[in-house]
Amino acid sequence: MQTVHVDLAHAPYDILIGAGLLADPQAILQHLTQANAVIVTNTTVAALYLAPLQASLVAAGVSVLPVILPDGEQYKNWTTLNSILDALLEHRCERKTTLIALGGGVIGDMTGFAAAIYQRGVPFIQIPTTLLAQVDSSVGGKTAINHPLGKNMIGAFYQPRLVLADLATLHTLPAREFAAGLAEVIKYGLIDDAVFFAWLEQNIAALLRRDVEALAYAVERSCSIKARIVASDEREQGVRAFLNLGHTFGHAIEAGLGYGQWLHGEAVAAGMLLAARASKLLGNLGEQDVQRTEALLQAAGLPVVAPALGFDRWMALMAQDKKVERGHIRFVLLRHIGEAYIATLPEQHLREILL
Amino acid sequence: MQTVHVDLAHAPYDILIGAGLLADPQAILQHLTQANAVIVTNTTVAALYLAPLQASLVAAGVSVLPVILPDGEQYKNWTTLNSILDALLEHRCERKTTLIALGGGVIGDMTGFAAAIYQRGVPFIQIPTTLLAQVDSSVGGKTAINHPLGKNMIGAFYQPRLVLADLATLHTLPAREFAAGLAEVIKYGLIDDAVFFAWLEQNIAALLRRDVEALAYAVERSCSIKARIVASDEREQGVRAFLNLGHTFGHAIEAGLGYGQWLHGEAVAAGMLLAARASKLLGNLGEQDVQRTEALLQAAGLPVVAPALGFDRWMALMAQDKKVERGHIRFVLLRHIGEAYIATLPEQHLREILL
Repeated sequence: MQTVHVDLAHAPYDILIGAGLLADPQAILQHLTQANAVIVTNTTVAALYLAPLQASLVAAGVSVLPVILPDGEQYKNWTTLNSILDALLEHRCERKTTLIALGGGVIGDMTGFAAAIYQRGVPFIQIPTTLLAQVDSSVGGKTAINHPLGKNMIGAFYQPRLVLADLATLHTLPAREFAAGLAEVIKYGLIDDAVFFAWLEQNIAALLRRDVEALAYAVERSCSIKARIVASDEREQGVRAFLNLGHTFGHAIEAGLGYGQWLHGEAVAAGMLLAARASKLLGNLGEQDVQRTEALLQAAGLPVVAPALGFDRWMALMAQDKKVERGHIRFVLLRHIGEAYIATLPEQHLREILL
Repeated sequence: MQTVHVDLAHAPYDILIGAGLLADPQAILQHLTQANAVIVTNTTVAALYLAPLQASLVAAGVSVLPVILPDGEQYKNWTTLNSILDALLEHRCERKTTLIALGGGVIGDMTGFAAAIYQRGVPFIQIPTTLLAQVDSSVGGKTAINHPLGKNMIGAFYQPRLVLADLATLHTLPAREFAAGLAEVIKYGLIDDAVFFAWLEQNIAALLRRDVEALAYAVERSCSIKARIVASDEREQGVRAFLNLGHTFGHAIEAGLGYGQWLHGEAVAAGMLLAARASKLLGNLGEQDVQRTEALLQAAGLPVVAPALGFDRWMALMAQDKKVERGHIRFVLLRHIGEAYIATLPEQHLREILL
């Protein structure tokens, strides 16, 4: 087991990474403030992992309420959030009741947001079961739901007490979702660590066959990079925005096609290549680095051609981005592989890269 | 003008108290992070104070979007909150757009919660126009909406950048709402300051005729006491709970009769007398202090007889309280006038005081 410490001044916490952590409730028990917990999960994950987790907690004397949601990004909305809150109220959950998110990014984001706003905040533990959630969404305290006018528009910064990344759960992940998680792994190389990017180029095959040592290294590196960035800028006033490489384009793809058509990581993959191309047009990233980016995304099984939304629609969708300031869209771009920066893009460049 | 500083480690801010502050936008302008703002208010307050506030901001070059909600506690719910969020998204409000709450406690609570969760948090200014909001709900960063199963069950701790308490707005406040605000003023004397309680006994007539000097003193004292308590316990882990004197009973009254039947301050007044009686049964508060409490509440025009909800319904409603721990309801009680403490109450005492 490896531990990555997220060194936030007021809410520091650990990410535990290893195969088989779910079967051992000790880490969770240490963080419960009262002998009861609510496990929020979805129908797919419940069938695989709810029973063993629930049983291990119950055996340790914890009273457990499972809340099982429908599976999919299209349910990351008010209605589903309310169904969590209704369950908490109907079962008289208290301020010291811990919410445990068991699932992917959608479950983590919604459970975290429910924990942030139920009685103005209750304790919260993340057990991410997808690669995307283990390397990205479960770390850093961003919680949210979608709004018809924009992704993740309603939410809170709210930190978990503990993140438990059980690598064994990745073996049941469908190939398409696994690849979507790799998009965020590749992102860390692009924005922060050229050596890790090169390691990914060498080890992409091992990752795709879910070699547990390769997974452990990739998850640990990803969490370490994210933890360092988040600790230096919890509320996204500065460098944390680099984590959004490809996301302004990606969110427009997701919203433009309708949430749930492209997976988040797929949209981010196509968005990162757009950002790489835009960086090249601005005279930063070289053509060879654009090609390396495209090649690694393709090798990971990710889409590299963004859908043709039409220029005006692209611009309208991106204008909803949370990084917009005074009407200007601020893009995360690349100086070279391993170093990001933020800038606006001239319309001519946007027209050149967008369909 | 008087200033009360709320000394929170990570989000300190000032409460400005004085007559006519609304006409002078300088204090607001200093706190805007971008030259635009959204004023959230209700139909009643908009008719009185929206035009002058909006005009003074626009004259200073600020782009202003007014969002006007229906008036009443019964609208403090998901649907109304969503209408704020929809307006923010439809007008493409950004992370640096400031939300200004212009109104009473309901407007402040909902606007503050909208500010807390819109794009995971945007800046927020309180302009409370009721006595209750000036002395209580605008100070301390508690924001929330109600749920059919409990009052203020969904919300966040989220601090304003500035609170502007214009005493002139109190002259248009209906007598019933003014009295409801006095309930919270009296609360500060009961839980924290016997000298202030005695001052209130002497000056209740001046307050009721809205003498501006008496108002300035009462608002300043109330805000100072609350600011000190909040600064020492922002997230209600300890002494902040004292601010809930009468509130466990009061919330049950509000929910039991249906939100909007009794005003919050009215329910708190009846609840504080119940707490005083319970304190006496536990051998703490003397009969004379119970009588002084009852006399001052009555002199302020507040109800002192709680409605007959029936014991089982009382208990069921109070079990929803946010201060419940491991199923035990924790009541704020009085040792004597000016000093509060927290304890559970034996069922026999509860049966004796509740109808």
